Amino acid sequence: MREDVTVTTLMRAEIEQIPAVVDAVIREGAAEQAVAAEAIRAKSPRWVSVVGRGTSDHAALYARYLLEGLLGLPVVLAAPSLTTLYGGGQRWSDALVLAVSQSGAGPDVLEVTSAARAAGATTVAVTNDARSPLAESAEFVLDVRAGSERSVAATKSYVGELAAIAALAGRLTTGEVGDRLLRALEEVPEAVRTAIEASDPRVAHVAKIVSGGRGALVVARGLELPTALEIALKLKETSAVFADGYSGADLLHGPIVLAGPDVPAIVVRQAGPVGAAVDAVVERLRVEGSPVVRIVDTEPAPGSDLRPAATSAAVTDLVLPIVVDELVGPLVHVVPGQLIAEAVARLRGLDPDAPEGLTKVTRTR
Amino acid sequence: MREDVTVTTLMRAEIEQIPAVVDAVIREGAAEQAVAAEAIRAKSPRWVSVVGRGTSDHAALYARYLLEGLLGLPVVLAAPSLTTLYGGGQRWSDALVLAVSQSGAGPDVLEVTSAARAAGATTVAVTNDARSPLAESAEFVLDVRAGSERSVAATKSYVGELAAIAALAGRLTTGEVGDRLLRALEEVPEAVRTAIEASDPRVAHVAKIVSGGRGALVVARGLELPTALEIALKLKETSAVFADGYSGADLLHGPIVLAGPDVPAIVVRQAGPVGAAVDAVVERLRVEGSPVVRIVDTEPAPGSDLRPAATSAAVTDLVLPIVVDELVGPLVHVVPGQLIAEAVARLRGLDPDAPEGLTKVTRTR
Repeated sequence: MREDVTVTTLMRAEIEQIPAVVDAVIREGAAEQAVAAEAIRAKSPRWVSVVGRGTSDHAALYARYLLEGLLGLPVVLAAPSLTTLYGGGQRWSDALVLAVSQSGAGPDVLEVTSAARAAGATTVAVTNDARSPLAESAEFVLDVRAGSERSVAATKSYVGELAAIAALAGRLTTGEVGDRLLRALEEVPEAVRTAIEASDPRVAHVAKIVSGGRGALVVARGLELPTALEIALKLKETSAVFADGYSGADLLHGPIVLAGPDVPAIVVRQAGPVGAAVDAVVERLRVEGSPVVRIVDTEPAPGSDLRPAATSAAVTDLVLPIVVDELVGPLVHVVPGQLIAEAVARLRGLDPDAPEGLTKVTRTR
Repeated sequence: MREDVTVTTLMRAEIEQIPAVVDAVIREGAAEQAVAAEAIRAKSPRWVSVVGRGTSDHAALYARYLLEGLLGLPVVLAAPSLTTLYGGGQRWSDALVLAVSQSGAGPDVLEVTSAARAAGATTVAVTNDARSPLAESAEFVLDVRAGSERSVAATKSYVGELAAIAALAGRLTTGEVGDRLLRALEEVPEAVRTAIEASDPRVAHVAKIVSGGRGALVVARGLELPTALEIALKLKETSAVFADGYSGADLLHGPIVLAGPDVPAIVVRQAGPVGAAVDAVVERLRVEGSPVVRIVDTEPAPGSDLRPAATSAAVTDLVLPIVVDELVGPLVHVVPGQLIAEAVARLRGLDPDAPEGLTKVTRTR
């Protein structure tokens, strides 16, 4: 905990609870994860549909990369309107449906899950309320175990959702990689603690950079795309910053025109070969003049011109003195982004816990 | 053609060519569409992967709604990084891969298509260059027939991609609905002509509204989501406006905090029940104070408080005096958005044909 934080927000306090939440998902959730995984394996689904809205949609996107990448199954990001507005018709019988909702109360996520289960799908709810309508409607429940989350901006429940998804994916993946994922998950609580400690001395400075523009770009590649989208959403929710999250590849197909000295960028630069693909995007952003903040692990980047720890006028690094397995990177790398969003809100004199016009549960179809 | 357009841009000229492009896709493309459809039906794919970047990604999203909605097959929006950065492993053998690329030269789209074909997938390229590497690598080619597109901001090639996708989907869908889609497609050229005529007298006024904010929201539901994303991208590309495209449901899960008097919104309000779901979003945007521009068909909205033709201080309607079948709505409703983006660029003294920092072909992996 920083000495110099005079205003303590709920959002800040809840970010600090993330290690405990992940720990609870690993320890207390093991049995329910094992039961769900066994049932899913027995059913051998031929495809997966992940469904969520807002922050939980980003957790669903993490599930998409993990399950498609590890299991080789087609993973669809559900378009709830196909069920709620267009009357459905999907062939659910050989599907696994993974429904993600912090509250478990969103009507659209609930409707998709119920329709899919009625049509024979295996349904799993990832939710922070194990007695919610969504939990009732799904065959299996993975409890996010984040406890009461009072800040409107979801932080610990998001990482809890990711942890539950990683735990399930690890159990569904046979052999070495599944074990690797479960082992990597064990290291997340400590890595998050380290990430918070390492970010704290720098976050006020970074918040000034991010807050200084007419908007912001948040960029990542691959498995970290959910991280970029989630950090962008936090900046919007807490501070009304026009923050756009992009895959680095998609950024170059058009939105790069937004870059410039008045548009700072936050870039998630994971370790390893995928991180190296991010470096080209950082270089392009520098050329366009955008002030760049990199969230970066300590490991030197092979083949990268940009030294990970380099900080210049153009690039400011938030170095996390850790190397997390890329499979669980999103559980750790989002945390500095959450801290930045919280700090930007305070810098602007806003209350990150109660953004104007938002409520904790959003009911959409 | 407006009398009062003194500066004629390539973008404007190419938008006017859209009816001819759609017509060419319908007439000249019929044979190749029939051949591809027959081959796909013979293979009975169990899932579909659509792949594209930038504007073509929005065409891919249209294919996703259409094919999942009409055929009931799971349709995955490909994450190219799973192939290009993470080494693949998807089970392509029972897949249909629909690769969309105006240039046919994007390395990532090409790599996914080649990998999928090598692993037994049925592959179809939707491209404006029938001799491109992508066209070479796919088993079937649907030519977009847009001719040379010289403005960097793609307009006619986008609608041409949608037309080719609709034509294929219509032929893949058995019975009444498939016929309905093909008939609706026939009406698109005339509807686009009418949409341009109806937009012209209003577009300069609308451009002022859109250009006046610190950013812009572009909102739609269901099948029109690609339209919202594409209009937002055009505003970015031509005018460096921070324009965010959203599903109305996702907007309410957080980004709605951006709304306010300094953030105008463009809302695509299709006819029928899905359009009615959009009205609630319009109402919310009005409450938050955002100036709203609605792109709306003439048909009165059943159960809607907002009369389609109503224009108030808060809501400005671009009324298209047509009712297009919702299945082909995206081919028509995007056109006023393209005209708005072109007009915003000129209003800001920018050249919409050559946005700084963009090239016609973007090479990403």
